[in-house]
Amino acid sequence: MEHIISYNEIFKFTYNTFIGIGCSHEDATTATTVLVAADVRGIDSHGVARLPGYIRLWEAGRINPTPNIRIIHESPSTATIDGDAGLGLVVAPYAMQVAINKAKIAGTGWVSVGNSNHFGIAGYHAMMALQHDMTGIAMTNASALVAPTFSVERMLGTNPIAVAIPAGQQPPFVADFATTTASNGKLELLQRKNGDAPLGWVQDKEGNDVTDAHALKTGGVMLPLGSDREHGSHKGYALGSIVDIFSAVFSGASYGPWAPPFPAYVPMPENMPGKGLGHFFGAMRIDAFRPAEEFKHHMDNWINRFRNATPAPGCDRVLIPGDPEREMEAVRMKEGIPINDTVYNDLLEIGKRFGLQL
Amino acid sequence: MEHIISYNEIFKFTYNTFIGIGCSHEDATTATTVLVAADVRGIDSHGVARLPGYIRLWEAGRINPTPNIRIIHESPSTATIDGDAGLGLVVAPYAMQVAINKAKIAGTGWVSVGNSNHFGIAGYHAMMALQHDMTGIAMTNASALVAPTFSVERMLGTNPIAVAIPAGQQPPFVADFATTTASNGKLELLQRKNGDAPLGWVQDKEGNDVTDAHALKTGGVMLPLGSDREHGSHKGYALGSIVDIFSAVFSGASYGPWAPPFPAYVPMPENMPGKGLGHFFGAMRIDAFRPAEEFKHHMDNWINRFRNATPAPGCDRVLIPGDPEREMEAVRMKEGIPINDTVYNDLLEIGKRFGLQL
Repeated sequence: MEHIISYNEIFKFTYNTFIGIGCSHEDATTATTVLVAADVRGIDSHGVARLPGYIRLWEAGRINPTPNIRIIHESPSTATIDGDAGLGLVVAPYAMQVAINKAKIAGTGWVSVGNSNHFGIAGYHAMMALQHDMTGIAMTNASALVAPTFSVERMLGTNPIAVAIPAGQQPPFVADFATTTASNGKLELLQRKNGDAPLGWVQDKEGNDVTDAHALKTGGVMLPLGSDREHGSHKGYALGSIVDIFSAVFSGASYGPWAPPFPAYVPMPENMPGKGLGHFFGAMRIDAFRPAEEFKHHMDNWINRFRNATPAPGCDRVLIPGDPEREMEAVRMKEGIPINDTVYNDLLEIGKRFGLQL
Repeated sequence: MEHIISYNEIFKFTYNTFIGIGCSHEDATTATTVLVAADVRGIDSHGVARLPGYIRLWEAGRINPTPNIRIIHESPSTATIDGDAGLGLVVAPYAMQVAINKAKIAGTGWVSVGNSNHFGIAGYHAMMALQHDMTGIAMTNASALVAPTFSVERMLGTNPIAVAIPAGQQPPFVADFATTTASNGKLELLQRKNGDAPLGWVQDKEGNDVTDAHALKTGGVMLPLGSDREHGSHKGYALGSIVDIFSAVFSGASYGPWAPPFPAYVPMPENMPGKGLGHFFGAMRIDAFRPAEEFKHHMDNWINRFRNATPAPGCDRVLIPGDPEREMEAVRMKEGIPINDTVYNDLLEIGKRFGLQL
């Protein structure tokens, strides 16, 4: 069964939950805006479905609701930030704003963040740059689920990358993707339906290709974008590694197999080489490269040309990165957000605890 | 038949060829160093095998051997460069040096380049940053051969990305990959052997998956990393697009299907929206984020941990990006560079023209 809840209702509920764990009004507003942006854009796995997970991390003492987020190292175009174990949903927008502020003066701004937690959808943070006529970049490392090419060991997270580029008349270009063949969210969707995963998404713990969407529960791994060596999995492995290094080795966060797990019941890795999760953000003023109007004219032309590329037989149209999410947002802001039964019941439990109605 | 030629011999021959088309001593040295780096590192498709192609572009008036490469726009951390139709092999190192110089002062440097030509292997330029204790990034757009997801039209080049990250005791992390399932070089190798390509590399002009390595000669296309929608080709398409936009829309180069073709006999696209090919370079000082020694210690730890990840059954070891090329370099600098018969004969022709011995 599916429950349809309006943006305003889900926002209010989520906001009050964050107030319930001790966040300030400002932080609760930011965290809610970021978290619910996932639901609105159709990335259901990263939205309120994760609210119980965040609460359990707070209960386990791994999330600090009143963090002292601060710059610990900087140059004219860079900063390194300690998130003080705050919600990534709060730390990330703070860090992205620092990148934007640096870019205003230096042309670009680049911020690596350590001692943080999961930050919701990467696309939200990258898109913060758009209103400033800047290109935005966001990435994060995450709990290790992915095996490098030629390995069966979980060494990397699904480590997403988002890039948002402003246009003129056209809506912006917004790419936001895990560096794995399929995101963990898509895998979770198949797990709930007890469906088979396509070959090339997961392997069992012996390194055999399997279609069992539950393979991770028995020691299996997710595969880097490309799936196997012959189809370029070493490129997905390299991309996931770059995200890990920029996010965590640059900042002093914990990296690779030592990244802290999202489920609070999973013990923290031993001998962690850094603190918490890491993120990396970039902001580039478009007029640091070319007059803004000229850039936007050509970006519109780029988007138009690609949108009008010859479709393959049986395909309606060619999409520009960001199209599906923007179209979903228009629908869900009007018609409400569908919440499945499992998530709905989880939210009711949270409601009981914090005295909230859904 | 294969000919083994020493680095010094191939360097001298290539240098004299560039002198032959009118390059200065300095530019010929740079262009040769970059071009032959591909052969030495085992990326044979991008090395002297392309020398005849460069010569034909020069004959067609599309390469200017004495370019006035200049900064046309800048900010503290950025620059836009007009390559004046020079060899990309010369323009790219110039631009990367500008990025490095910016990074010395601003912490990072980012340079978009237009009006250029093919720049050899992306990895060479990214690696220029290493000796300055900086992370280097290089990318370029290229002649359109790749169809976006849901399309059968050639809209993007194989648009490679390289990222070089310094370490301490360990050799550096150097990723350098096309944003397609397989590089054009690998496809050319199969074409020469009349071998079949794995499914997922190319499609025919109707959008059918085919194994014919010659499919591009009959209107076929290469596929973005991921191969098909179910295996994440929209991510490869997004990556290739980002490279195209950063390299060409940022700089004023020609983009997407309008990128100038490498073969000089292919007519230039009509209504080109910019000049020449585009590149994008980045340099980030590691101590702009964290004290350099601390960073290197953790980068060594990262590399060690990944190199010692559990191998899959039947696999010897897990590789770090850059391992295969570095190992090849050690062999070829000692034992010489194998040149196949076709390339050897092409070089003999060039030798006749410019009065050179091979």
